[in-house]
Amino acid sequence: MASKRIGVVLSGCGVYDGTEIHEATLTLYFLDRAAADIIAMAPNIPQHHVINHLTGAVTNESRNVLVESARITRGQIRDIAQVTADQLDAIILPGGFGAAKNLSTVAFDGPSATVNPEVSRLLQEMAKAGKPIGALCIAPALLSKVLAGKGVTLTIGDDAGVAGAIEKMGNKHQLSAFDGIVVDAANRIVTTAAYMCASSIGEAGQGIEKLVAKIMEMA
Amino acid sequence: MASKRIGVVLSGCGVYDGTEIHEATLTLYFLDRAAADIIAMAPNIPQHHVINHLTGAVTNESRNVLVESARITRGQIRDIAQVTADQLDAIILPGGFGAAKNLSTVAFDGPSATVNPEVSRLLQEMAKAGKPIGALCIAPALLSKVLAGKGVTLTIGDDAGVAGAIEKMGNKHQLSAFDGIVVDAANRIVTTAAYMCASSIGEAGQGIEKLVAKIMEMA
Repeated sequence: MASKRIGVVLSGCGVYDGTEIHEATLTLYFLDRAAADIIAMAPNIPQHHVINHLTGAVTNESRNVLVESARITRGQIRDIAQVTADQLDAIILPGGFGAAKNLSTVAFDGPSATVNPEVSRLLQEMAKAGKPIGALCIAPALLSKVLAGKGVTLTIGDDAGVAGAIEKMGNKHQLSAFDGIVVDAANRIVTTAAYMCASSIGEAGQGIEKLVAKIMEMA
Repeated sequence: MASKRIGVVLSGCGVYDGTEIHEATLTLYFLDRAAADIIAMAPNIPQHHVINHLTGAVTNESRNVLVESARITRGQIRDIAQVTADQLDAIILPGGFGAAKNLSTVAFDGPSATVNPEVSRLLQEMAKAGKPIGALCIAPALLSKVLAGKGVTLTIGDDAGVAGAIEKMGNKHQLSAFDGIVVDAANRIVTTAAYMCASSIGEAGQGIEKLVAKIMEMA
């Protein structure tokens, strides 16, 4: 049997301006242990900004989302513009502010956010094809915008502001903790809070491990 | 019982110019699962260079080792110059070219390499105190230079060039694969090949999980 082809959408390299590194790495780890064929991807666009992760300050640097994401995948990554849903059996979006600043404007615009056109296109293709979509941490808010008005059920943990934004987008938010997953079986969507609730990498890993197992089962 | 305090020495953020992200993240993951008190650290120095991880090209950017390492630890990291052996029960060095380009000059100078003075000081303090030292991937070559002439037994997998350099430094190299660890019980040193041999994150994780378990047992 051929390996299941699982897309992983990255948004840079570092929690404050890109992909949350632990969430992405643990996603790759659990996928690889499940013998998935991993197809990592990111948009070829500038980052919204660059944050010094030691001080929290915005720097005057400019970095590229695809180039920085390649750090997490040891160079094995594709421009998301070149990926179509027929090449994938499922897709997973790790979190980090990159999902809300680079892949979308959720961090700034909440329910009025825009989503990167290639990210939106691929997620809509996956949804139309009935292929499973997983999203971690803040990424479900981006997914909610792509699927606005569809009534899908998602979790971002227990943040009232983000949960409210998801409801305003015409979807349903379900409370959860770091060790749970929320499965919308009808819409083939699995979400977990990860660092929206977790206070350590081990805690984040609990939900991520369950999410990856469920996505592999559904794919 | 107080948690065991385990230092993790980072060297940037990305395999080609810094810490290998998977090795560092899985080290943190297994440590956290074992209830370790993790003390991440890095030297506050410029990186040797910056590599575009998508193309492999050297860029004209300059980045700081401590600042970039902070991406891997969500900002929770200390300047290694402020860490002494009495604050730690054991220490682990993940790999990546940063260990051989930023923490030392092993990548360029082989057996004649120099080691960052603060990294060298702390590792010598740990060795003198008989506290366990773990090293992954290429990091054992750096450790070999710090402990030159001590006759310690280390592995970097099966790379003949690096193994020869370790022997020239007055230490012993033992062949190994991605799923093994080499334990020098007398000198309290545990090493594993990780991405020197592994062809996937799941393979790298096998040796790293064993190394962390052994370090926690010895600490």
